[in-house]
Amino acid sequence: MKKQAHAWIEITEKTLGTYLDFSVNTNPLGIPSAVIQNLSQLAQVAGHYPDPDCRILSTALADAYDIPASALLCGNGAEDLLYRLIGAVMPQNALIIEPTFEEYRRVLTLSGCQIQTYQLCPEKQFLLDEKILSVIDDSLDMLFLCNPNNPTGNLVSSYLLDEIIDKCQKNNILLAADECFLEFIPDWNHHTLKHRAAASHHLIVVDAFTKTYALAGFRLGFCISGNAALLRSMKTQGPEFAVSVPAQLAGISALEDTSYMQRTAAFLAAERDWLFSQLHALPIQIWPSQGNYLLFRTSCPHIREALLKQGITVRDCSRFYGLGPDYCRISIKHREENEILVRVLQDILT
Amino acid sequence: MKKQAHAWIEITEKTLGTYLDFSVNTNPLGIPSAVIQNLSQLAQVAGHYPDPDCRILSTALADAYDIPASALLCGNGAEDLLYRLIGAVMPQNALIIEPTFEEYRRVLTLSGCQIQTYQLCPEKQFLLDEKILSVIDDSLDMLFLCNPNNPTGNLVSSYLLDEIIDKCQKNNILLAADECFLEFIPDWNHHTLKHRAAASHHLIVVDAFTKTYALAGFRLGFCISGNAALLRSMKTQGPEFAVSVPAQLAGISALEDTSYMQRTAAFLAAERDWLFSQLHALPIQIWPSQGNYLLFRTSCPHIREALLKQGITVRDCSRFYGLGPDYCRISIKHREENEILVRVLQDILT
Repeated sequence: MKKQAHAWIEITEKTLGTYLDFSVNTNPLGIPSAVIQNLSQLAQVAGHYPDPDCRILSTALADAYDIPASALLCGNGAEDLLYRLIGAVMPQNALIIEPTFEEYRRVLTLSGCQIQTYQLCPEKQFLLDEKILSVIDDSLDMLFLCNPNNPTGNLVSSYLLDEIIDKCQKNNILLAADECFLEFIPDWNHHTLKHRAAASHHLIVVDAFTKTYALAGFRLGFCISGNAALLRSMKTQGPEFAVSVPAQLAGISALEDTSYMQRTAAFLAAERDWLFSQLHALPIQIWPSQGNYLLFRTSCPHIREALLKQGITVRDCSRFYGLGPDYCRISIKHREENEILVRVLQDILT
Repeated sequence: MKKQAHAWIEITEKTLGTYLDFSVNTNPLGIPSAVIQNLSQLAQVAGHYPDPDCRILSTALADAYDIPASALLCGNGAEDLLYRLIGAVMPQNALIIEPTFEEYRRVLTLSGCQIQTYQLCPEKQFLLDEKILSVIDDSLDMLFLCNPNNPTGNLVSSYLLDEIIDKCQKNNILLAADECFLEFIPDWNHHTLKHRAAASHHLIVVDAFTKTYALAGFRLGFCISGNAALLRSMKTQGPEFAVSVPAQLAGISALEDTSYMQRTAAFLAAERDWLFSQLHALPIQIWPSQGNYLLFRTSCPHIREALLKQGITVRDCSRFYGLGPDYCRISIKHREENEILVRVLQDILT
């Protein structure tokens, strides 16, 4: 029995070491060092129940985003907040803009909601345009919008976003905006809906530390809305002690490093440009992205298997609505790793 | 910003240090040292998504309880599993034996379930007897049974437990047995329903590391049932990545210390006897308990406030169905702390 924990760490590291993982799109800079340093103090507090209201974490988030702490609710990852949101609203009709993060559809389906789909086209670079406005009407209760979108990496224009918000408000539709990847963009502050959500009844922003601060293992998400009744209802839709002590400590610590996301965004902008130009030279279709990932399409339907044979894992896009196994989503990693990917793709495709 | 994490630890420690906390009934021996040691390796793995199937943790649990790993489902604390269980079953009519852990009622109410109550009486020492069998019929879908019961500390006799299981099976009622406090009892292995649950369609055992291994901050629960369809459905009732990396590491590490619960049970048996005899000499009503806590009743309705003035917190029993503010639940702590409680109670009550 003595070896279980070590076996666990070994297996985890071995699994991670066996493949060059381009499938998971967490921050390539890894966990902020402030988090790692503060983990040494975990044993002092982890025997005690976590604060169910995450008060210090909420204060830190409120400071970081310049919003009132009362507009915040933290959860066991963004996924937990999605379950709670849909459980609280129980929408009858929801609109999803596809392809996007598949959890919206999964959780909505589970709740028995009727789902309408607005499909983005590769021919139009998966860009969202004004046609979306014609399908937003009072038959809907909810609209899910991932910005920038996963897996395409597109950002919705500010003008269109305003129009969508306006139309949702007029038709009493709750707009759920997922900003889990937004801070990978240098001027994210011009695009975020966090401030507007904090003052709105018809808007909720879902975000997490999973991707931006690479805290995937801790499970820490948060959402922002001025709809206090909605947040209260979401709080009762799952366990009271949703956010663990390690997650609260990690989140508070991550926010201490106020330049971490700027450094990340600068790193990503340069590396994404380089990787995009390299992949663009290959016989593949590739689309510009503002996220920490790129979507491309090859004429090879077994591209994932071919990459796997070379020790590289990429995201299976057949799980994204409207995409197939000929699509791949890759995360942006460090130059040496990105070079390996380019080389292997060259070998497979040319 | 730099001081947030330290402020958080300081506030937590200050809060904990200000009061002598007899309200929380986690293991008085604290987090096992094997957990604390392995926490130093957390930074190596916590940037990665947790295993959603908790495979190594499940194998360790299966070894520890001699059950198949396929009969296990882990969750973000026992509370998370309760939500998932009720979400999966959606019972129409459930029976709760009160007073007991208040979450059963809260989550059932939230799901719209009709609740029947079987009330235990202080005159009968809150003991469950055969009369319960007369109210178990096919009008019920579910029965919740906390063994030993919280806050009374009573264990259901093996004979009666057999009868209840039999009656539930015959009437197609799902019996949810909560064993979160069972391992505080030296011969818990003679009372556990884990093996029977692993082979049954009508029985599910809910347990957690919260109380027994003092891992309250990590949020780690598990449940056992031979009803594979039920476990599968529970898995979809909440986030896929329910159990964090720190929680999986803590759980696996805790199980490495195979004598920890035996040492705990021996410590508790002696200390509970001493504390019971001391409290029994005071002008209070007190009931025998097999848990790591004792329930007593005083003629003073403001006993909690009086204790708080002396720096002692106890469990507010007015939140337990059928009990009032004249009842207190206290946890068993170390001798020096228990002595302080006895002295302060003597001062207040005599």
